[in-house]
Amino acid sequence: MRKVAVLGVGCTKVGEHWGTSLKDLFTEAAFAALNDAGVEKVEALYVGNMFSGYAQQQEHLGALLADSIGMSGISAAKIEGACGSGGAAVHAGYLAVASGMYDYVLVGGVEKMTDVSTAQVTTALMMAENRDYIGFTGITFVGLNALLHRLYTKTYGAKLEEIAAFAVNDHNNAVNNPYAQYPFPLKIERVLESPIVADPIRLFECCGVGDGAAAIVLCPLDNAKALAKGAVELAASTVATNVLSLNERDDLLVFDATRKAANKAYEIAGLKPEDVDVLEVHDAFTITGVLALEGLGFAKKGEGAKFVSEGNIALGGKIPTNTLGGLKARGHPIGATGVYQVIEVAKQLRGDAGKNQINGAEVGLTQNVGGVDSTAAVHVLRRCR
Amino acid sequence: MRKVAVLGVGCTKVGEHWGTSLKDLFTEAAFAALNDAGVEKVEALYVGNMFSGYAQQQEHLGALLADSIGMSGISAAKIEGACGSGGAAVHAGYLAVASGMYDYVLVGGVEKMTDVSTAQVTTALMMAENRDYIGFTGITFVGLNALLHRLYTKTYGAKLEEIAAFAVNDHNNAVNNPYAQYPFPLKIERVLESPIVADPIRLFECCGVGDGAAAIVLCPLDNAKALAKGAVELAASTVATNVLSLNERDDLLVFDATRKAANKAYEIAGLKPEDVDVLEVHDAFTITGVLALEGLGFAKKGEGAKFVSEGNIALGGKIPTNTLGGLKARGHPIGATGVYQVIEVAKQLRGDAGKNQINGAEVGLTQNVGGVDSTAAVHVLRRCR
Repeated sequence: MRKVAVLGVGCTKVGEHWGTSLKDLFTEAAFAALNDAGVEKVEALYVGNMFSGYAQQQEHLGALLADSIGMSGISAAKIEGACGSGGAAVHAGYLAVASGMYDYVLVGGVEKMTDVSTAQVTTALMMAENRDYIGFTGITFVGLNALLHRLYTKTYGAKLEEIAAFAVNDHNNAVNNPYAQYPFPLKIERVLESPIVADPIRLFECCGVGDGAAAIVLCPLDNAKALAKGAVELAASTVATNVLSLNERDDLLVFDATRKAANKAYEIAGLKPEDVDVLEVHDAFTITGVLALEGLGFAKKGEGAKFVSEGNIALGGKIPTNTLGGLKARGHPIGATGVYQVIEVAKQLRGDAGKNQINGAEVGLTQNVGGVDSTAAVHVLRRCR
Repeated sequence: MRKVAVLGVGCTKVGEHWGTSLKDLFTEAAFAALNDAGVEKVEALYVGNMFSGYAQQQEHLGALLADSIGMSGISAAKIEGACGSGGAAVHAGYLAVASGMYDYVLVGGVEKMTDVSTAQVTTALMMAENRDYIGFTGITFVGLNALLHRLYTKTYGAKLEEIAAFAVNDHNNAVNNPYAQYPFPLKIERVLESPIVADPIRLFECCGVGDGAAAIVLCPLDNAKALAKGAVELAASTVATNVLSLNERDDLLVFDATRKAANKAYEIAGLKPEDVDVLEVHDAFTITGVLALEGLGFAKKGEGAKFVSEGNIALGGKIPTNTLGGLKARGHPIGATGVYQVIEVAKQLRGDAGKNQINGAEVGLTQNVGGVDSTAAVHVLRRCR
């Protein structure tokens, strides 16, 4: 397999882009990434997106978006893995370059959520779950995560404020991210006083609804090595799945897709969790951030919440996590999130992360999830000098 | 790049499967393919599907269907390229094996169209087109193809019965395909007397609405060579795109995505159209079948309809085409079609095509399209002895 590099990155601010179409959002991110890469043309495009069919009555995003950036003719497809669509698209792009078939590949992620009502978004998100066996009960996606949240506190005696601390970390980091949806600091009291959305999950423990697009240019590592800034290698790219129905899982509190994808990624990259300098996890809710830390091997089983509340994931902590805001505060435009994560880690490794720069960061890891950890995409990035 | 083989194939009959869920349809095809391949486990799954979100309110088919075949844990994603989703999924699977990352990959395609009304299917199909610039006019998908149909007759003086002959060929071939939706012969008179759907396209020139699933197992060619039957190599796999809006195209009567994908595939496989023994083209309508023959280089520009009506695509003709019924008569369960095509060509190369066997077939080609040739996936299969 050829080694792969992240040559360029670009994204829009996450927010309520009432006046901008899905196509235009994507185009903005794509041109930013192409400019950053210094590349005018790519040979293939993979677009991560979950529900443009539902929200925009628009499918066929591969051909449509290749057209919108003036590159009709190239190979293109949409990749879908629910909220993990962006990560799955990065994996597709990685394989395309690693195979030797394509040299320059654009991977994008885009979701325009505000074209439909919040109630419709709630319906759309449940398309990530098994409709016949879970969806029919009427439970919402936040409701499923609330079950895990409650079970976690009951099983391990974790305190609600320990779990809620995850949101505080994200918001503090988002303050310095010009692309973040909610760039304001948050105190733990405000999280714990916010309304309950699905008991025990509170409003400020949930990512918001937002529009956004993110894109990266991938190429063979050898083609990136001449760059002045030093290349960023995509040292491992893995996707794994888990049983969808929570009632069929062996242990509800183990994120097994994340665990499998991470273990394979560590093996491929020849690394351990201790080698990672900067981390992006999929905290759609505070509890999913906590369980991600455990699944990835940064905290022991049942100790993730304590690990968070003790400050280990802060910028100066043991493993700086979601350094530009994470899903909670940068935002979670579903199909784009996995690509935003790769961009943010690449910026850290290039020394482009601004005020939240982790000095000397050499290795970064991203974890992007679809459903309640039913699909997990893990990417390891490494700085090459 | 590693060379790739088609190790096993399986599909359901195309039809109105009222009593079978999308998941169960897929499972039937997947197990048939796994059994045929003699493989119990794969490492990755790619599922071609266009509108399960619309018709079943179900996304996340990668993880869902990996789960439904008892393989949770493996890498999985849904690949979407409108009616070309199946071909795009085969391309994703090809890259996955060619890259060296995965040895055994299952590629499936599935669409359950009869869960919604025909009017809703009409709406769903228009998601393949640019909604902002074409969809808003209210034109239907068959309407767009009718424009090409009329323009073709005006430009080249082709007769309606020459174009309609494509449907007759498909139906005659479907008679001997137990998986075909419409396995009955058709006379040209019946086509030309059938009701007009979108002038000048008549009912029996349109593929039907049907449910179906198809699956193939891919592996490195070296792993397939030990097989008694002789391996079937996936000698080329390409995807190309075209401008979506018909009004922006240089020449409406050139299938440019097909042309680009085919030319690249010929180059990779080291072949010319004359070397192809058996062909599957995407005849969603008779006119698209005719334009496909021209785009692929089997007929000259403007001569495709005459080529068809002169019997060149019949079983005993110059280039036997859609030997098991094509989209018109085998059926066109959108996201599955590209996979059905690869299965049917593989069967021909293995000598498993039953009464419609093309004796001595060594090379086959499939062409699968999304939108009005906005995405085209071309696959070249070759028998290795």
